[in-house]
Parts: sequence; C-alpha cells; structure tokens
Amino acid sequence: MPSISERGLNTQASPIRKLVPFAEQAKKEGKHVYHLNIGQPDIKTPECALNAVRNYKGKVIEYSHSAGNESYRKGLAKYYNNIGIDITQNDIIITTGGSEAIQFGLLSCMNPGDEVIIPEPFYTNYNGFASAAGVVVKPITSSIESGFALPDIGEFEKLITDKTKAILICNPNNPTGYLYSKEEIIALGEIVKKHDLFLFADEVYREFVYDGLEHYSVMNLKEIEQNVVLMDSVSKRYSACGVRIGAFISKNKILIETALKFAQARLSPPSYGQILGEAALETPKAYFDEVYNEYIERRNFVIDALNKIDGVMAPNPKGAFYTVIKLPIDNSDRFCKWLLSDFSYKNSTVMLAPATGFYSSDKHGLDEVRIAYVLKIKDLKNAVEVLEEALKVYPGRTN
Amino acid sequence: MPSISERGLNTQASPIRKLVPFAEQAKKEGKHVYHLNIGQPDIKTPECALNAVRNYKGKVIEYSHSAGNESYRKGLAKYYNNIGIDITQNDIIITTGGSEAIQFGLLSCMNPGDEVIIPEPFYTNYNGFASAAGVVVKPITSSIESGFALPDIGEFEKLITDKTKAILICNPNNPTGYLYSKEEIIALGEIVKKHDLFLFADEVYREFVYDGLEHYSVMNLKEIEQNVVLMDSVSKRYSACGVRIGAFISKNKILIETALKFAQARLSPPSYGQILGEAALETPKAYFDEVYNEYIERRNFVIDALNKIDGVMAPNPKGAFYTVIKLPIDNSDRFCKWLLSDFSYKNSTVMLAPATGFYSSDKHGLDEVRIAYVLKIKDLKNAVEVLEEALKVYPGRTN
Repeated sequence: MPSISERGLNTQASPIRKLVPFAEQAKKEGKHVYHLNIGQPDIKTPECALNAVRNYKGKVIEYSHSAGNESYRKGLAKYYNNIGIDITQNDIIITTGGSEAIQFGLLSCMNPGDEVIIPEPFYTNYNGFASAAGVVVKPITSSIESGFALPDIGEFEKLITDKTKAILICNPNNPTGYLYSKEEIIALGEIVKKHDLFLFADEVYREFVYDGLEHYSVMNLKEIEQNVVLMDSVSKRYSACGVRIGAFISKNKILIETALKFAQARLSPPSYGQILGEAALETPKAYFDEVYNEYIERRNFVIDALNKIDGVMAPNPKGAFYTVIKLPIDNSDRFCKWLLSDFSYKNSTVMLAPATGFYSSDKHGLDEVRIAYVLKIKDLKNAVEVLEEALKVYPGRTN
Repeated sequence: MPSISERGLNTQASPIRKLVPFAEQAKKEGKHVYHLNIGQPDIKTPECALNAVRNYKGKVIEYSHSAGNESYRKGLAKYYNNIGIDITQNDIIITTGGSEAIQFGLLSCMNPGDEVIIPEPFYTNYNGFASAAGVVVKPITSSIESGFALPDIGEFEKLITDKTKAILICNPNNPTGYLYSKEEIIALGEIVKKHDLFLFADEVYREFVYDGLEHYSVMNLKEIEQNVVLMDSVSKRYSACGVRIGAFISKNKILIETALKFAQARLSPPSYGQILGEAALETPKAYFDEVYNEYIERRNFVIDALNKIDGVMAPNPKGAFYTVIKLPIDNSDRFCKWLLSDFSYKNSTVMLAPATGFYSSDKHGLDEVRIAYVLKIKDLKNAVEVLEEALKVYPGRTN
C-alpha cells in the first residue's frame, strides 16, 4: 500500500474531535451532554434569508462566477460601506466559507516554508490550512492574566525572520473572545508596514461586540491597504454556518487576481449559499438586536457564574461568543475526557474544548478550556453547575 | 508591497478564462455568441431535488458532519452498490464539489515535489490543484488519431520515478469524451500495483456513456483497492453544478482518516447541496433516459456535422459531453480569440475552448479545440455553421 503524505500524517485532529466518540458513548449511556464545546449557535437563521432559498425559482442550479454572483458582491460591498469600509465588488471574492478565504490567503501570499505569526491561543483549524499550504505557524503566546490582549509588539519583532510573510489575527477572537483595540490594530499595522508583511484578519465575529465597544477593522489601515486581507463569513453573523459562504477581501488588485486563479480552479462558491447570503443582507436590525441581547445576557450570566466557582478564573470577553477560562486541573484533555467518560451530575455532563488545541506551543493550555456560550441561559446554568460539581471530585484537581 | 507567492504567480488562468473579456465585448457589440466552450449543461436539475431544498423546514442552517450527513452517505453508498461498487458510508467523504475531492487526494497522498502522471489532454483545473498542493504533473500525450485512447503502458513505465506517487485519470474523459475500456483500466491497475502507486479516478461523467458501452469503474480493481481513490460529483449527473457537492471515496481506511483531517479543517460541505444531493438519489429513471436521448442526439448531430467540414477531424466520443477536434488552423488560442473579436456570420459567432489549455506539454493542442455539446440541436446547428464559415476565411488557416 502506498504511503500517506507527510502533511496528512502531521495534520493533527483537534482535541475536540478526539472527544467526540466519548461524547457519543456518554449519550448512548443515557447521559445528557451540555455542549459548550462548539461554535454552532442555536440562534435561528433570519427568515428573509431562509425564504430566499425556499422561493428560488431557478430550474438549473448552475455554476456562478468564480468570484461569486455580481449582485451579491455589490450588495456585500454596500454592507461594508455602511460600516465604514471603503471597498467595491471588485475587491471581493466570495469563498466557500471563511475557511476558503484563509486558504486563498495562504496560497496566494506565501510559499511553502514561509512563516505566519499568529497570537495564541488561536482557532485550531488555522493549523490544518497551514499544513495543507506548507506554511509554518509561529505562535506568540497571549496570557489569560491580561485577558488575552495582543502580546507586546516587541514579541512580534523577535519572531520576524526573512521567512516571515504574514501576521494573522482573529478579531474578535475565537477562542478567547478578546476584542483588539484600535490602538492594538494600529500597532500591528506599523509592524506590518515596517517589515512589509501581509496582515490577515479573520473578522467573522465583527457583529458580536459588547459593552458599547467598537470593532476596529484592519480595513481602516489605509496606509497599508495593499498589505491587508480581510477574511469574512456569513456563518456567525446570520447563524448560517452550513451554507459555507465567506469572503476574501483586499484592495490589492494583484492579490485579488492571484486568489481568483485558485477560485477559478474550484469553479464557484455554493449557489444556494450565495442566494441566502445575498438575501441575508436585508436582515432587519431587530434580528441583530435580539441576538445581541441574547448573547450579552448569556455572557454576563456565564462569566459571573464561572468566576464564582472555587479555583476558576474567567476573563470577561468583549466579543464573539467564547471565553477561555483557567481551571484548577492537571490536564485539560484528560479533564474533558473524564467529564464525558467518568462523571455525571443529575445524569448530565458537559463537553468542553481543551485549550491545548488552541496553542501551537507545547504544554500550553493544560489548565485552560474554551467555553462557547451558545446555549440558552437555563442550559448554561445547568452546565455550569455540572462543571462546578465535577471540579469538586476530579481526581486531577491541582488546588 | 509584499510579494505574491510563487505558486500564485505560476498558476495559469486557463485559455478559456482569457477569452472571457473578448466574449463579453462581442456581446456588447450585439453579436450572438454560441457557447460551446463550457461544461455547464442546459439540462434541468431534477424536480425532486429542487423540491427538497424548497421544502426544507430547518430553522438554523447548521454545520453538518465534516464527512457529510450520514443519511446522505448511506443513500450514496446504496447508489454505488446498485451499480456494482461495494462500499459503505464509511468509505465516503462528501466534498465541496469534485474539485475538493481532487484536492483531498493530492494533499493526503502526495508530498510537495511528488509527481502525478496524467494522460493529456486533461481537465485544466488539475493544474491549479496540483500547483496549490505543490505536486508536479507529468503528462503523457494521447493522440487524436487513436481517438484519445489510453497511451501505451510502456509510456507510463518510462515516466515513473521514485517521485511518482499517483496516476490520475478522468473517465469518461473531459475534454476528449473518450471512455476507457475495461482492459485499459485493468492495465492501469497492473502498473499501479507493480509500482505501488495511488490510482485517482475522476468519474463524474459515469452516467454519460453511449453506444451500449459500459463504464468500468476503478472501484472494480479489487486487488488494488487500497490504492484506489474515486473522485465523484453530483454536478453533471443531476445538472446541479452550483450546489458544489462531490465525494472522495476509498476502501483505504487510513487514507479516509487522513482526508477527513483536511475535511475537518474546513468544517463541512454545503448543507443545501447535501439536501439536494440526497433527494436527487430518488431521481426517476425517466429523467436519465431523457438526458441520455438528448445527449446522444446532440453528439450524433455534432460529430457528423463537424466531420463534414473541410479539414476538420472529430473523433466520435463514447462518453461525457465533450469532444476534442482537429482544425486546419495555426494556433487555437489565436483562432478562438479571432472568432470572438474579428468574425461574425449572420451576426453570430462561437466560443470554443482552445485545446492548449488541456495539455501540459508545450505547443500541444495548437490545432485542436474542445467542443462541449451542451446546447440544443438547433443552436448546435447554427454554431457549427458559424464554425464552418469561419474556417473558410480565417487568416491563419493551414490547409
């Protein structure tokens, strides 16, 4: 039998994936499992968006333009214009999820062996895309003590070599929920300019910003607009993760032309998803208000409840719907597995994401887990109670 | 401004893409353009498939399993079982189009610098995927004189080095319409076994086989089932190119596990497409009969009409809906551009695909073009007439 590729062997399944069989087993045994591990919101997709697909009259589901339907790109440009981002439909390639936007960025900007700096903890799947593209991830650790703020710019300077081609941030951040400030984004812009790097920004949680703060997009960095790539997605904004529609955005024409070549090879992004995405642009403000109110209530509840548990530290996230918290445990992979396999409280348990999967540096995240507050308050309440009881009896408790 | 990646610069837009602006200009000038250049059929998507999407009652368009919905994979396994291919849902990963199945194959089986042998002319986009994966394409030229039959196995032997990791075929073939015989597939199996290679087969045109012939799938090669990967798609079978649903299929469990890691990184294939694909499995036989009759009529008409033109040679394709034909011209890129920019007959012209884009060897395909017979007979008739008149006056005519 011929051998599997090295990149195939080296790509690690995330720690969450490894837990799935244990969660399935727990359910088979009749336990209720509260899922705080996933980024799949329970919020409904806007009716106007669902209806557009239901009412679509086309008789042949054809390929679209490789950059996406022009009407959708025009509508999307208007969405960005309305939030102060000055682009046209020609600066946009519609992608198959935000995932593909990241892939296009790595393929178009980086050669195999080139390095991308990413503050960690970071979204696990960046590893898979980097591995596929032959790109090396250089992590800079941010700390829970500072609420996962941007690491000191000096730390970036230390890592920059002649192989460094880009810095990638996720803002608001998955997994930490941290919202980068305007000052932090400007500081990143300066180092990007100084070393002539690309700045990739995954801003898919843009609408999920709390406490009266404002999201400051990398697209505001006019001076380095040729270096900036915005990666976006409709998944979270409209709770439509399954449509697989995102966007690759840049004012750099040569970069757009290059990414378009990779886009042309895969022909087109999904047609139904584009129909839904275009219709979703008309989502009424009331929808977002409701979603906002729901999430802020959940966040306030969950952060407060977690910090009341003995030995738990939960920074207050300003965006997205995640938080990385510190627990009094020896090993988060072991703890999360133990929760599913060996523990129950009132016949329930909770599935968490071990933070080890969000760090590229060895042995980081052993006492941290990610919580996605994507459940209703009632369920969050029960889930936190389960966690509290679990920590009382976990054999690997450290203090 | 930071530099674009080498793979980005080296990936060539296909010659068809380069013609698009000239086609747009021709239309602006009021010319009618017959599109014989594209693989977008004018056949309707089955009603049962369209209705499944229209009637979908889900309120949240969620991520699916990364390998695709289990119910769809089970249904798809049954489809294969019915055509004599012995697989289960666990041998299938639902992909974002056949395109992604090819990407998963290259990423999972091949290291950067490894070589894949492909008989040429071949589907242009294999180049883009190879470039993204850092894989080197080694072409073996098949000839129009033999109707684009499989090149002699000795030619494959000559090309095999310690870098060779796979052979990729498309059967029935895009762009040639050639259907590989059972004997040819078995011969490929033997060389694959001898050198322990992977055999990738793109069989997306499986249903388009004419003249009472039978399609012989690589999945029948039981002795090398661990080496075989089937790449499939619903695009052509159900005229649903825009849903972006395909499949990566292998009996090799380690390979499926490896490909699944890349599948997990991109989360899931499109939800609506899966709904359509699953419902399409119930497409009545009458639909395929109608499509078959339509295509065979088109093929018979177009091949006959083309061969009647002075200086034109059109082999009779046994599958798919393409044919590569030989024309008395100096340069197919120049001719195809000239058709759009400088020629019209009865205020019409025709857009063809220069065959240069289907060859990886230099200077091949200069006197060949691909015809996609995806138009109604009436339009095909007019298009062939335009071509005939054009050849009479083309300044670069060679004989």
